[in-house]
Amino acid sequence: MEQRERWQKALNDLTAKHKERRSRFVTDSGFDVAPLYVLNNSDSLESRVGYPGFYPFTRGVQPNMYRGKLWTMRQYAGFGTAEESNVRYKYLLSQGTTGLSVAFDLPTQIGYDSDSPEASGEVGRVGVAVSSIEDMKILFDQIPLDAVSTSMTINATAATLMAFYIAVARSRGIKESDLEGTVQNDILKEFIARGTYIFPPQQSLRLVTDVIDYCRLNMPKWNTISISGYHIREAGSTAVQELAFTFANAITYVKGAQERGMDIDAFAPRLAFFWGCHNNFFEEVAKFRASRRIWAKIIRERLGAKNERSWMLRFHTQTAGCTLTAQQPDNNAVRVTLQALAAALGGTQSLHTNALDEALGLPTERTAQLALRTQQIIAYESGVADTVDPLGGSYYVESLTDQIESEVWKELDHIDKLGGSVVAIEKHYFQDAIAKEAYRYQREIELSDRVIVGVNRFQIDEKGEPPVLHVDPSLEEKQRASLAKLRCERDNTKVASALTELVREAKSNTNLMPHLIASVEQKATLGEISKCLRESWGVYQDS
Amino acid sequence: MEQRERWQKALNDLTAKHKERRSRFVTDSGFDVAPLYVLNNSDSLESRVGYPGFYPFTRGVQPNMYRGKLWTMRQYAGFGTAEESNVRYKYLLSQGTTGLSVAFDLPTQIGYDSDSPEASGEVGRVGVAVSSIEDMKILFDQIPLDAVSTSMTINATAATLMAFYIAVARSRGIKESDLEGTVQNDILKEFIARGTYIFPPQQSLRLVTDVIDYCRLNMPKWNTISISGYHIREAGSTAVQELAFTFANAITYVKGAQERGMDIDAFAPRLAFFWGCHNNFFEEVAKFRASRRIWAKIIRERLGAKNERSWMLRFHTQTAGCTLTAQQPDNNAVRVTLQALAAALGGTQSLHTNALDEALGLPTERTAQLALRTQQIIAYESGVADTVDPLGGSYYVESLTDQIESEVWKELDHIDKLGGSVVAIEKHYFQDAIAKEAYRYQREIELSDRVIVGVNRFQIDEKGEPPVLHVDPSLEEKQRASLAKLRCERDNTKVASALTELVREAKSNTNLMPHLIASVEQKATLGEISKCLRESWGVYQDS
Repeated sequence: MEQRERWQKALNDLTAKHKERRSRFVTDSGFDVAPLYVLNNSDSLESRVGYPGFYPFTRGVQPNMYRGKLWTMRQYAGFGTAEESNVRYKYLLSQGTTGLSVAFDLPTQIGYDSDSPEASGEVGRVGVAVSSIEDMKILFDQIPLDAVSTSMTINATAATLMAFYIAVARSRGIKESDLEGTVQNDILKEFIARGTYIFPPQQSLRLVTDVIDYCRLNMPKWNTISISGYHIREAGSTAVQELAFTFANAITYVKGAQERGMDIDAFAPRLAFFWGCHNNFFEEVAKFRASRRIWAKIIRERLGAKNERSWMLRFHTQTAGCTLTAQQPDNNAVRVTLQALAAALGGTQSLHTNALDEALGLPTERTAQLALRTQQIIAYESGVADTVDPLGGSYYVESLTDQIESEVWKELDHIDKLGGSVVAIEKHYFQDAIAKEAYRYQREIELSDRVIVGVNRFQIDEKGEPPVLHVDPSLEEKQRASLAKLRCERDNTKVASALTELVREAKSNTNLMPHLIASVEQKATLGEISKCLRESWGVYQDS
Repeated sequence: MEQRERWQKALNDLTAKHKERRSRFVTDSGFDVAPLYVLNNSDSLESRVGYPGFYPFTRGVQPNMYRGKLWTMRQYAGFGTAEESNVRYKYLLSQGTTGLSVAFDLPTQIGYDSDSPEASGEVGRVGVAVSSIEDMKILFDQIPLDAVSTSMTINATAATLMAFYIAVARSRGIKESDLEGTVQNDILKEFIARGTYIFPPQQSLRLVTDVIDYCRLNMPKWNTISISGYHIREAGSTAVQELAFTFANAITYVKGAQERGMDIDAFAPRLAFFWGCHNNFFEEVAKFRASRRIWAKIIRERLGAKNERSWMLRFHTQTAGCTLTAQQPDNNAVRVTLQALAAALGGTQSLHTNALDEALGLPTERTAQLALRTQQIIAYESGVADTVDPLGGSYYVESLTDQIESEVWKELDHIDKLGGSVVAIEKHYFQDAIAKEAYRYQREIELSDRVIVGVNRFQIDEKGEPPVLHVDPSLEEKQRASLAKLRCERDNTKVASALTELVREAKSNTNLMPHLIASVEQKATLGEISKCLRESWGVYQDS
């Protein structure tokens, strides 16, 4: 009898006597997990998987990956005032973080100044409050903008915040072309999953394209967009949906830029992606690998890119916030370690590791430090960064990579048939599909069909709360005072004229970026600029 | 040009321009790490690796591994008096631990009662003090000995402690044949690396064989020895030495039992192994896989076992204590998570995860709980337990598995030429070889050629110490009092006559186990028994 048959018989005999732990094993995204994976189609594997640094990049975008340079350790942070966040950034840099990542508060994300009535109660809560060029100056005080790479998680107001950043650099004599970093600038996933949109889709897309075009011409080291599956996944999607919906959005952005007349190979090398990393270890590794292969095919074969650099999917990863538990928060350090390892094995370009107390509040210095140490231990002690794609060839991982790819193609076909991502958003297709999966996942937890340690199993009586960071409640008052001072001291005639010009250009087809920069250099605030654009374009109401 | 050549050229071009992070990448044990591993010898891979549940068991000892039953979560614990340790065991069981593992204090390990002058200052410090059947009764009070599996880390005095355990079970009406568990009972590695030996090698081996033989006849569910590489590794060996030295010891034990006239297939299925899990993630996974394949070949081809169950290397794993740092102790939670994951991916049968504060002292309830939660999250949330040997086929892991195997054969050949493990111990071969590697490792840290996060990089000023558990200093007094009471209340004539018989049998070739049980049932103490055997056999002095 063949080895394989002998094993199959032994398995059948065994499981007839002893039931397995589950009647069906599945990944988090619902793929069946077989008891054993073996070599399959070895002939086609080499061509399907390829070599790192070469199309279709399954094994990574560089020929030697982390042997050359580790991923960027980029911890997302920001809270309270610009002063407080500046202190935290310097702390993180002193601890060995290798890139900054700015979290903005909700008012800043949806275009309200800290002193506007709409901002009340939300100033500095989930990120830093940045209403003007002055706030941005303080935020990066004594941080060398030409030597550090900065990521900004901002979307509806991305163009204005980019204008702040550029204007601060200019005021310090730093050339735009020397700035390195990323702006999220992905408005479509806001409509799908995250909710911080302002304008209708078409005008929103125009701003996205303005940023892409401006950076293409002036900021060659800047990633002009970070097309984000993270929030889609956090909202409850599967790994397949995370990829498929994000690629549908990416296709829309690329086509928008092409319609503006840009050559795809002039901007595609600066498109970046942003994935989450959930609990199901091998599914996540396979997802990262599949994502590179799928995007390479989309952009080369469907969208016509010819430059090798355009074909390379580069991505940031954040460990999944939705997997953190408020119960037994120390357990989150374990989850974050596993997720961070999966991201490194998947070949991420940069990584944020969540702090263990993020389910409870803002991380303290101690937990922020441990989150960073998690990356450093993986990078320097575990040896996993010393060879390219160490899981390559694993029967299970290659099988999952193939499965994810094939399911993503099916999903993309379906979105195409609906008419692409903007139509799918308007038809609520994405939102409904995610809600369905989120419900399934939640049901599994409620039925204890899915074990969450400390939540539906291994619970304990917990007394007391671990210390979390509290934002100083007086900060709104402080922000109000500094904005009042700014409005009093600036040349309000020049502000008015800059804003008038902005409104005029908003109605035309020119790139708004130079006008935004001119406005913020006159100290026009985020709220003032957003108000002008709201009045010009209207706001989007979700039906 | 072939894909492979194109990649090689791109790599050469890239590394000519940008130096890699290191001039040479190696695993912790010194294997060169190539930039990329690709499919190699695919034809022979299937036969070399085989199927789980089948010789040579590279992929695991059961056809479906953790789909049927998870590894045993067995947290090594014990401190202070039997009462205190009993409380901790019940706590661990309440938290979901699935097996007990007893740590004994140093006096117990080297055969001194808590009230002997040699014990002073060491009672209850690194484990629980057990001097008599009364202590053992208290230690397992209200713990169902016939329903829980117990592991005892005890070597020079293993036979006496087994006698205590058996006598307690009998006194509670539990049949020996229902007892499940493991006794370490591995004296050779004490001479090599751990140091808690008493008697000369030959007499020590006789006790080991007595336990194996007694259990073979009376305790079919008991693992009669846990042949341990862990302490060899902790002393500074490489992964290859850990396997090779341990297998050399295993061969000696098997031959000893065969010389006693036992059929190999009557005792080999109850031999167990104990590995450490160090930092180098893939090397450790490969080590576990290689260990199964090597042992299967040794016991089948060299030692002649015919029973499939004899061929299966089953092992316990402990995350490497030597990798824990006193600096920034929270970081240890990350290290332990990575090591525990490697153990699960390597197919361990049971696992102890270290508490993050074990470099500082005894774990508190909080850190002991997190250590256990680490296993539970890997088992229940990560999905890695849902398919057999998920890394099977990985070009890197298969290559490392082959390399480790071939180096272990070379080392075993060398030990054979020296004359086997007893001779090699007497010649200090093992000790010197380990010391050399320990020196190399330490030098690498001192030169910062090896990064240890928080130790030689990413250090911080640390204020204060985290809380650790302190053993009540009054416990020695308590132990003295209870031993005085025991000596006063027992029938000292019967004790004397049991010990006289023990001494007589020690000089013969009969199995000592029944006489040890008879002695402890009369309440002879560990110290009294050990004294008799010392006087009969002499003690070993390391030259």
